[in-house]
Amino acid sequence: MKKIKVIQFGLGPIGIESLKLAAEQAWLEVIGGVDIDPAKAGKTLGELTGVESLKGARTFPSLEALFAAVGTPDVVLHTAGSSAAASFAQMKPALERGISVASTCEELIFPALKTPDLAKDYDALCRQSGARIAGTGVNPGFVMDILPICLTGVSREVRSIYVERVVNASTRRQPLQAKIGSGQNPDDFKAKFAAGKAGHAGFQQSVALLAHAMGWKLDEIRESCEPVVATSRVITKFFDVAPGQSLGIHQKCIGLSGGETKIKLDLQMYLDASLPHDAIVVRGRPELNLVLNGGVAGDDATVAALINIVPRLLEGKPGVRLMTELAVPAWANPAGSL
Amino acid sequence: MKKIKVIQFGLGPIGIESLKLAAEQAWLEVIGGVDIDPAKAGKTLGELTGVESLKGARTFPSLEALFAAVGTPDVVLHTAGSSAAASFAQMKPALERGISVASTCEELIFPALKTPDLAKDYDALCRQSGARIAGTGVNPGFVMDILPICLTGVSREVRSIYVERVVNASTRRQPLQAKIGSGQNPDDFKAKFAAGKAGHAGFQQSVALLAHAMGWKLDEIRESCEPVVATSRVITKFFDVAPGQSLGIHQKCIGLSGGETKIKLDLQMYLDASLPHDAIVVRGRPELNLVLNGGVAGDDATVAALINIVPRLLEGKPGVRLMTELAVPAWANPAGSL
Repeated sequence: MKKIKVIQFGLGPIGIESLKLAAEQAWLEVIGGVDIDPAKAGKTLGELTGVESLKGARTFPSLEALFAAVGTPDVVLHTAGSSAAASFAQMKPALERGISVASTCEELIFPALKTPDLAKDYDALCRQSGARIAGTGVNPGFVMDILPICLTGVSREVRSIYVERVVNASTRRQPLQAKIGSGQNPDDFKAKFAAGKAGHAGFQQSVALLAHAMGWKLDEIRESCEPVVATSRVITKFFDVAPGQSLGIHQKCIGLSGGETKIKLDLQMYLDASLPHDAIVVRGRPELNLVLNGGVAGDDATVAALINIVPRLLEGKPGVRLMTELAVPAWANPAGSL
Repeated sequence: MKKIKVIQFGLGPIGIESLKLAAEQAWLEVIGGVDIDPAKAGKTLGELTGVESLKGARTFPSLEALFAAVGTPDVVLHTAGSSAAASFAQMKPALERGISVASTCEELIFPALKTPDLAKDYDALCRQSGARIAGTGVNPGFVMDILPICLTGVSREVRSIYVERVVNASTRRQPLQAKIGSGQNPDDFKAKFAAGKAGHAGFQQSVALLAHAMGWKLDEIRESCEPVVATSRVITKFFDVAPGQSLGIHQKCIGLSGGETKIKLDLQMYLDASLPHDAIVVRGRPELNLVLNGGVAGDDATVAALINIVPRLLEGKPGVRLMTELAVPAWANPAGSL
């Protein structure tokens, strides 16, 4: 059995979780990690993750340093930010060498939306070198785009798509609770969202991917985000929120074509949300009405999506790939071979 | 815009529905049909379907006759039975010429289950000629296999998969109501199922496809089917069922590995079923609990799945393909181009 060699680029909380999951896969071999944080460089991945089998893998300050020291991997697992432009630039040394990249970068779910020229340039580069790069995840990357798209595989007509997601942020990690504005003054949060410094990333990319898959040309994508304000005191492990302060967000994004709303995404992510679920309604023929009771648990599922995409990515054609161009997602059995 | 040329093989009720849907697609061109029924040969597809734009396309008694008269298509839409062996034999003249085949044949969902040698032989033939052949549909082909598989794309662990489907057969066409034994003596139905002459086809193939996608080696697949017996009189457009007679079926299929039930499929399809739905439970990490309220309407969705797979099939690698090896299913917009 030939193992797929991977490295982890970005050793923040998601990168560490990704590494732990990668270490469990008999079909993967982790050969190193990259992080720009000097405090991490020089440490082994075993030290950073607490995973015994990663003790032999080292951390490097750059891809070039890693390649020079331990050779090239087959795939880079990339968990280092939301910007497609930054991710492309970070991954250039890998892509040039024909090394494929699986990324949690939200904008890479549909890079042509914000960076169409870069997406073309990197697509050409990848086709030449034989590399693939694709963004994946849970949201964006699954619940609000790939799952509804998959559902329309049995549709003879699709008129519109609606997805809603209610997430109880009380059960999530501290950085997420902070990110959604927990305990903040609602007006401060509104100002931050208006400045592009708050809210859930990748919403517009989900809308763009849905429209692309349905063959709809959108005239406009509209996004809004309002704080959910506490009416009574709410206490979590990390926050104590007084009435009048923020509990989280209610974010919406719609895609319009010819004045008609074709796509509507609705996300409520706040502390103490009572009935977490994901729901999809496809208007058309047949009508489809899907509910995921309890929803899809976030962090676990994000790194799972990242690892699970690896075999599909390597089977895909070289280029900047969308999830819709790869084989149906599926769990990659840790005991599996390829 | 270059259209994809298709022909329809099998002009029964599903074949006629497939043709009607194909005729609506701006990206498809229907160039003919094949049926062994002499009453159909010689008629135009316009006459058989009532669709004006199909008036110019004729019906032939064999693929060879069609190829000789109107040339070769890019894809054969195949709706002519449940047996993989029969379907392979019927499609040989197309596959030899490098023409790809999209089929509703239930056993083609996982042809290696019943016909492993044939599947290998035809895979080799297709790789040589450049053709692809794949089975698709709603069940098998979507609700009980591809949809749960897609769901596990966000799983870091999958321990078992359960799918149940409750279909209200009262809303379906007469042949389906007859097939499930409506109005029959329950004992007669049991004898027919035991002889392999009744029940829903493709159940075991769904189990085999799920196991294959999860990397599970099954020791055994067990299938059973019991009649659902009327306790009071039930009247539909086609049947008048007295108490004690059959209303339909309750079919189960499980996949075992090392004594453990890894996969469990449960289908209730009977007249007057009260709460039609599809449900999927993935035990693992995270736990996933999906419900499709009302379920997926059958016949409409079956031909939709067949047409929607065409662009994905042509993008796939030559060979005998599984749905899991093709790109994520999606609606193919009739106005679309490729």
